[in-house]
Amino acid sequence: MNPLTKISQPPYDLAAFAADLGDIPIETDPKTLYKKSRDFFWFSPVLKRQLEGKVGELLVEPRNEADVMRIAGAAARHRVPITIRGGGTGNYGQCVPVQGGAVVDMMALDAIEWQRGALLRVGAGRKMNHIDAETRKGGFELRMHPSTKRTASIGGFAAGGSAGAGSVTYGGLRELGNIMGARVISLEENPRVFELKGDAALKICHGWGTTGIITALEMPLAPAFEWIDLIVAFDDFMSAVRFGHELTLADGVIKKLVTPLAWPIPTYFPGTAAYFPKGKASVIAMIAEHSVEPFLSLAAAHKGEMTYQRPCDESPGAHPLYEYTWNHTTMLALKIDKDITYLQAMYPAVGFMEKVAEISNLFSPGEVQQHFEFMRHAGQPTGAGLHMIRFTTEARLNEIMDMHRERGIFIADPHIWTLEDSAGYKSADADLVSFKREVDPLGICNPGKMRTYVPVR
Amino acid sequence: MNPLTKISQPPYDLAAFAADLGDIPIETDPKTLYKKSRDFFWFSPVLKRQLEGKVGELLVEPRNEADVMRIAGAAARHRVPITIRGGGTGNYGQCVPVQGGAVVDMMALDAIEWQRGALLRVGAGRKMNHIDAETRKGGFELRMHPSTKRTASIGGFAAGGSAGAGSVTYGGLRELGNIMGARVISLEENPRVFELKGDAALKICHGWGTTGIITALEMPLAPAFEWIDLIVAFDDFMSAVRFGHELTLADGVIKKLVTPLAWPIPTYFPGTAAYFPKGKASVIAMIAEHSVEPFLSLAAAHKGEMTYQRPCDESPGAHPLYEYTWNHTTMLALKIDKDITYLQAMYPAVGFMEKVAEISNLFSPGEVQQHFEFMRHAGQPTGAGLHMIRFTTEARLNEIMDMHRERGIFIADPHIWTLEDSAGYKSADADLVSFKREVDPLGICNPGKMRTYVPVR
Repeated sequence: MNPLTKISQPPYDLAAFAADLGDIPIETDPKTLYKKSRDFFWFSPVLKRQLEGKVGELLVEPRNEADVMRIAGAAARHRVPITIRGGGTGNYGQCVPVQGGAVVDMMALDAIEWQRGALLRVGAGRKMNHIDAETRKGGFELRMHPSTKRTASIGGFAAGGSAGAGSVTYGGLRELGNIMGARVISLEENPRVFELKGDAALKICHGWGTTGIITALEMPLAPAFEWIDLIVAFDDFMSAVRFGHELTLADGVIKKLVTPLAWPIPTYFPGTAAYFPKGKASVIAMIAEHSVEPFLSLAAAHKGEMTYQRPCDESPGAHPLYEYTWNHTTMLALKIDKDITYLQAMYPAVGFMEKVAEISNLFSPGEVQQHFEFMRHAGQPTGAGLHMIRFTTEARLNEIMDMHRERGIFIADPHIWTLEDSAGYKSADADLVSFKREVDPLGICNPGKMRTYVPVR
Repeated sequence: MNPLTKISQPPYDLAAFAADLGDIPIETDPKTLYKKSRDFFWFSPVLKRQLEGKVGELLVEPRNEADVMRIAGAAARHRVPITIRGGGTGNYGQCVPVQGGAVVDMMALDAIEWQRGALLRVGAGRKMNHIDAETRKGGFELRMHPSTKRTASIGGFAAGGSAGAGSVTYGGLRELGNIMGARVISLEENPRVFELKGDAALKICHGWGTTGIITALEMPLAPAFEWIDLIVAFDDFMSAVRFGHELTLADGVIKKLVTPLAWPIPTYFPGTAAYFPKGKASVIAMIAEHSVEPFLSLAAAHKGEMTYQRPCDESPGAHPLYEYTWNHTTMLALKIDKDITYLQAMYPAVGFMEKVAEISNLFSPGEVQQHFEFMRHAGQPTGAGLHMIRFTTEARLNEIMDMHRERGIFIADPHIWTLEDSAGYKSADADLVSFKREVDPLGICNPGKMRTYVPVR
C-alpha cells in the first residue's frame, strides 16, 4: 500500500470548529489568508508551481497557551487540518496549508518566561531579534540565527531551520545541546502537554511543524560579543574560499559568520558597490571586536583587501551584513533576476578545498554562482554551498543536484516540500515519526508534509 | 661550523652585575637558588640526569618593569646569562639556568593593567588563578590554562605552554588570536621595549624565555561559565575514548576539559577510589552548567556511568578535577611510582579512533598507560596522547616515540631540553630566531636552550 493514497483531504466542518474557538481572534479576509498561507517557497520555481494557490480557510491567532489548547482540541474534534506559522520565513513551504483548513499564527506567544544564566525559556512566537534585544542586556544572545533574524520567530526556526549565523562556532541547530527543551501541545480531543528535555527536544527540530504545536522553547545562549561586520575582497573566488576555510579553522578568532561570495553575486546587493570591488570575490564576516586584529592579519596573509569594517547594526533601516548571506543572498538576487534559484549543498570536511575546485570546474559562472556558508557540521569545520542557480528546467536542476551528490556532496533538496525527501540528514535520536504518532494521532498537524506518516486513528 | 661550538660559558663578572642592580632584591641562599633553578624537568628521567645540579648563582627579584630594564642592561654590560622564571611549572627545563648566571623571578610583576571587554592586559608574573579570580567578577576568564593553573604565571605559560583546559574549544595557545599582545624587554646595554601585537605576539610563544624578557601580556578572554566537574566510567578504554571524541565533536555542548584515562591510572590519585570504579576506564570532563544535561545524555548513549558531578572548586584545599589531567596525571603517578614518565603525542584528526586502537595494540598496559587530552589543533578536533610510560632505558623510550612517529603521530619530545629538537610544530609566523637576534644579540637570554642560535655580537 502506498502511504500517499492515505493522504486525501478529509471532510470537516470548519464552521463548527470556528464556533468552538470562543473569543480567540480569527480572520477570514482573503488577502490576509493569502499572506498568512505563504513563506519563501517561491525561491524555488518548482515549489512555486506546486504550492502557489494553496491557501488556508481560516486564520486563528491564539493569545496564549490556553488558546492553543482550545484550538488543538477543536481541531481534533472536527478533524480540521492545522498549519502552524511563525514569521513565515521558511523556504520549503513549511507553513503552506497544502490540505487547507486553519492556519495558526503563533506570534502572540512571545513572552520570555525566564533566563537562568545561559539558558532561556521563551514563547515560540517571539522574534529572534527581540530575544537578542532582551538577553544582550545581560551579556547573552542566541547561539545562532537565520539571515531572517529580524522577522523569524524562534519557534519557526526551531521547527524549520537548520543553521545560520553562529553555526560556524556552534554547528547546526540539530547538534546536541543547541535546543535544550520544548513544550509541545498535542492535537487530540483532550490535548496533552509534552515537556521535551535534552536530546528529546530535538524531536521537534526541523519537523516542519508536523509534530504538534510548539508553545515554548528552552534555548542555550552564547556570550554576546560586540560583533564587527567586515568585508574582505580577493582577486579570485578560490582565494576567498581558502581564506574563509582558514578562518573557520582558526579557533582563536571568535566569529559568527564566514561567507565567501563569487562575483557577480554582489551586483544583486543594492547600494553596496563601494564595498564589493568590481570583478572580485568577497568574504563577508562577523568577528568579535577583540578578534578583529588577528582576523585582519589572517586576511592580509591571504592577500585580502578589507573594504568594510563597522559594528553590526540591527537598528531599523540599517543593514547588518548577515542580511546579504545565507538565503538572503538568494532573495536579493531574485529581486533583480527572477530566474535565480539555489542549492543547499553540504560539502565534506575532508578534502573540502579540492571539492570546491572540482565543483567550480563543472559549471559555467552563468549557470552556477558559488556561495558558501562556513559552519561546523558534526564537529567538523566545513561549508554549506548555497549556490545560486540560473533555472532553466526541472530536469537540469535535478541534474545539477545529482552532479553534486555523485561527488560526495550532500544535497538538502530545497525544491521538495515533503520532509523525508528534502531533509535527509536527521539525527538518529530525533524519531520524528514515532513522536508524531503521540502528538498527532489523527494526522491533522500540517498534513501532507510528512509524506510517510500514517495516522494512528 | 657547528653552531654548538659557539655555545660555551662566557666569562662574566657576577659581582659587578650585582652591584649594578642597586636596590633590586637579590638572593644567594643556596637552598633558594636550588629551588628557583628548577621546574618539573624531573618528569623525564633523561632531563633529570642532564639538568639536575644546574643551578643559578644569583636570584634577582624585580619589583616592576624599571627593575627589569635595569637587570637587562646590567646583564648585557657584564655578559651575564639570564634565565627568566615564573611559577616554575614547565616540564622541559625551560627555567633551568644551564649556563649558570642569574635567575630572574618575574612573579612580582603581577598587576592587571586593564580589562576591556574580552581583552586583558596583565603583568607576566600574575598567577593564572589570580587572573581568573579577578576577571570572573565581570563574567570572563582565561581561554585556557595548564593543570598547574594555581601555581603557574601567565608569562611562563605564554613562553613555555602549549595548551590546556580550554584547548578543547579554543585550540592551542599558538593558534592565531590566543595571545593578542606581548611587551618584551631586550637584553642590550640600552634595553629596548618591544610591543608585539597580533600574530607578532606569537614570537614569544613557546620560545622558552629565550626571546627577551616578557613583562606584560594581552590575553583574550572567554565567557566564564559555571564549570561542572564530572567523571564518567566506562567498561573499557576504547569506549571512554570514543565518548571523549564524540563529546569533542559536539559543538553544542560547552566544555573545557575532556580527558579519557585508562585503568590503572586512577589508582595514582589519592582519595578518589569512590569516583573511579576499579578496573574501569574514565573520562574526566569540565562542562558548562547549562550543557550538563546534553553531556549526560551523550554519556548515557555511550553506556557511561556518571560517578562524580560537582561544581569545579578551586578554593584552597579543594581538588578541581583538572588537577588530575594533562601533566598533573604524570605528577600524581610519579609520587607513587618513580619509574613513570610520559609522552606528548599529537594524534591525527582524520582516522583518530583507528589510530588510538592501533597504538593500544602495540604496547602492554604495563609499559604504556594511555591517557588523552582532547583539543582542537589547527581547527580540527583531535586528542593529545599524554601517555604514561614505565621507563626502562632511553633507547626503549626513543623506540616507543619512534613507533608513534612511524604511524603518523606527531611527538613533541618532552625528554629534550633544546627548543628545536623538542617542539617541532611551531607556526611559520613565529620566527623565533630572527626575533631573538633583535632582543638577544649577545646570546645571554636563557642561553643554550635555542641550540641553533648564533649570537649577533
